[in-house]
Amino acid sequence: MFEFSLQGTSGAARAGTLTLPHGTVETPCFMPVGTQGTVRALSPGDLKAVGAQIVLANTYHLHVRPGEDVVAKLGGLHRFMAWDRPLLTDSGGFQVFSLASFRRVDDDGVEFTSHVDGAKRYLTPERATEIQWTLGADIVMAFDHVAPGAADEATSRDALERTLRWLERCAKRHATVSNNRPTDQPSNRQTLWPILQGGTHPALRLEGLKRILDLGAWTGLAIGGLSVGETKPLMYQILESIEPALPRALPRYLMGVGFPEDLVAAVERGVDLFDCVAPTRNGRNGSAYTPEGAINIRNAGFREDTGPLDPTCDCETCREYSRGYLRHLFTADELLGLRLLSLHNVRFLIRLAGDMRRAIRIDDFPRWAADWRRRYTRTDAT
Amino acid sequence: MFEFSLQGTSGAARAGTLTLPHGTVETPCFMPVGTQGTVRALSPGDLKAVGAQIVLANTYHLHVRPGEDVVAKLGGLHRFMAWDRPLLTDSGGFQVFSLASFRRVDDDGVEFTSHVDGAKRYLTPERATEIQWTLGADIVMAFDHVAPGAADEATSRDALERTLRWLERCAKRHATVSNNRPTDQPSNRQTLWPILQGGTHPALRLEGLKRILDLGAWTGLAIGGLSVGETKPLMYQILESIEPALPRALPRYLMGVGFPEDLVAAVERGVDLFDCVAPTRNGRNGSAYTPEGAINIRNAGFREDTGPLDPTCDCETCREYSRGYLRHLFTADELLGLRLLSLHNVRFLIRLAGDMRRAIRIDDFPRWAADWRRRYTRTDAT
Repeated sequence: MFEFSLQGTSGAARAGTLTLPHGTVETPCFMPVGTQGTVRALSPGDLKAVGAQIVLANTYHLHVRPGEDVVAKLGGLHRFMAWDRPLLTDSGGFQVFSLASFRRVDDDGVEFTSHVDGAKRYLTPERATEIQWTLGADIVMAFDHVAPGAADEATSRDALERTLRWLERCAKRHATVSNNRPTDQPSNRQTLWPILQGGTHPALRLEGLKRILDLGAWTGLAIGGLSVGETKPLMYQILESIEPALPRALPRYLMGVGFPEDLVAAVERGVDLFDCVAPTRNGRNGSAYTPEGAINIRNAGFREDTGPLDPTCDCETCREYSRGYLRHLFTADELLGLRLLSLHNVRFLIRLAGDMRRAIRIDDFPRWAADWRRRYTRTDAT
Repeated sequence: MFEFSLQGTSGAARAGTLTLPHGTVETPCFMPVGTQGTVRALSPGDLKAVGAQIVLANTYHLHVRPGEDVVAKLGGLHRFMAWDRPLLTDSGGFQVFSLASFRRVDDDGVEFTSHVDGAKRYLTPERATEIQWTLGADIVMAFDHVAPGAADEATSRDALERTLRWLERCAKRHATVSNNRPTDQPSNRQTLWPILQGGTHPALRLEGLKRILDLGAWTGLAIGGLSVGETKPLMYQILESIEPALPRALPRYLMGVGFPEDLVAAVERGVDLFDCVAPTRNGRNGSAYTPEGAINIRNAGFREDTGPLDPTCDCETCREYSRGYLRHLFTADELLGLRLLSLHNVRFLIRLAGDMRRAIRIDDFPRWAADWRRRYTRTDAT
């Protein structure tokens, strides 16, 4: 369990298979985000229809509402959200540092105020690990200290050191809770992945990586603290600087990334797994990915457009509806529009990952990526 | 085409089959409402999954946005909303009198202000008929003058007389536009149904019915101006008073009705077809039909409830998700909740109609209805 095998490489790009308790995941892979135990506007059936292999859920959100004990009473996270394929939960670190009004961080943990009910709460590496065990995802993340994207070296060093100390505590607690359970059921098998911090400072990143690898025999590795405000070229540069030092045998997960062009650039730099709310959030705003870049379906030019949203796409949205109808759904504030564009955007990133996988397996990734970029127009925000 | 055949009766209740250009409809039948060319929160695939045979769309809404010409350019209403089964459009009469800030009604038509852009618009019987022809539903409705539920006899008489004069003009225009088109495509075949008005005055209803039947050889008949504020016993009494005079051969459509108990009471009084926004609107408010009455899923008592919304139901919502999860979706304001409760409520009414059909075919409807009522608790509003 939790093995990762490579089926091909092309430059630094890799195509692999990750075996998890609830199924296998072929990489490169995009994970849709089900923040509150649901990928916004989409059902599990929709996610299967667009080929989602694994979904991410947010520990912070599920902890504050409905609470991990409620999820456990409702059968654990898989049963709760009616998703029988692999799940990954983040540790809550990112949300505590970005979303909650946080009060105090010290070496023990973080005291913060819930964004839902204003209640004072406390998360430690041990609690974050226990909560994730109770939720029951296949992959859980270590509790980390995320510094802002523009953090100087001292601030990044501080966050890195704390994240490393917390990683030891997460690993210790995860071993304890795991050993207390029978391993005959998928929900009783779970792996913990460390998160590499270090901001935009290559030396810190490399030091952090070495120290993480010295701490244990991990089954995967996450790269955190990127796509948090730094420029894209800087993000790509950091990925390039650490790639040669990454163990070939471990799947690499770039957290919170991203846009189509980011997926291509990061796969080019050796990344295997991604998650991002952009496809569903942008979809709800009327923005749809196409091979030529994003379009906004509210545009008056689509009013009488009988063509599909993306003529190359095989999703329900592109098979069944015209751009003119989709525009009508948005101008008329109809819920179906939110769903149909979210569905397409998720399918777009899943197809993109699949296309990259195929190009890597025949060692044709550099040419494929150049072709893709010639066609695609960068559109970061909508 | 447009034939209606009876397969059974039980008391005044009838089970029949209506043949339409885009398919057959078995009655009693509940039609979900796709106000703006979409049944709110549901896709055509969802509607087929819950057994919808025919969908209603609102001429008024589609006329003001996106406009019938846009719908026509996007392939007509069936193609526009990706629904290949039968469609019915209302005439806009009800909306003009209830929704728009209307300015002036005279014998020629109604001048009103669009609720979308404030533009002044004018609808006449001829325009309403042409718009519906352009949209292309299987069944279209005559343009009617709807009086308020509590209208006195003089007001109801006035609305009835105007509706009858308008009916002649609708029929004349419908014959003209129909005759100008080839009939080899389903979208070129359409039938016009009259609407019986007369408020809560049995004598007016009976007179109106006689005069409608004298005006032409209709393929169906709608009963309008009920469920607009009068009491339920009064609505049932009106249905009882007109039922003996209704031609056995015509399908009878009670417009804008209704709640589960109304469907049972109206089928008992000889009605075949229904439409109502209640199942989707109530679903979006967290209210779900069950055989014991409606429940509100936001109720704290459902927090850790592992059971299905309605244990007797076969819809996706009831098959896949717990009440606890559905409650979480509503408390967390997740879009999937709106969809899942809408889906269940539509399925509930479609199953209810199917159950009635089966009971009628074995001439067991009175016993079935008594049993159903013993179990169901009336819940009109949510």
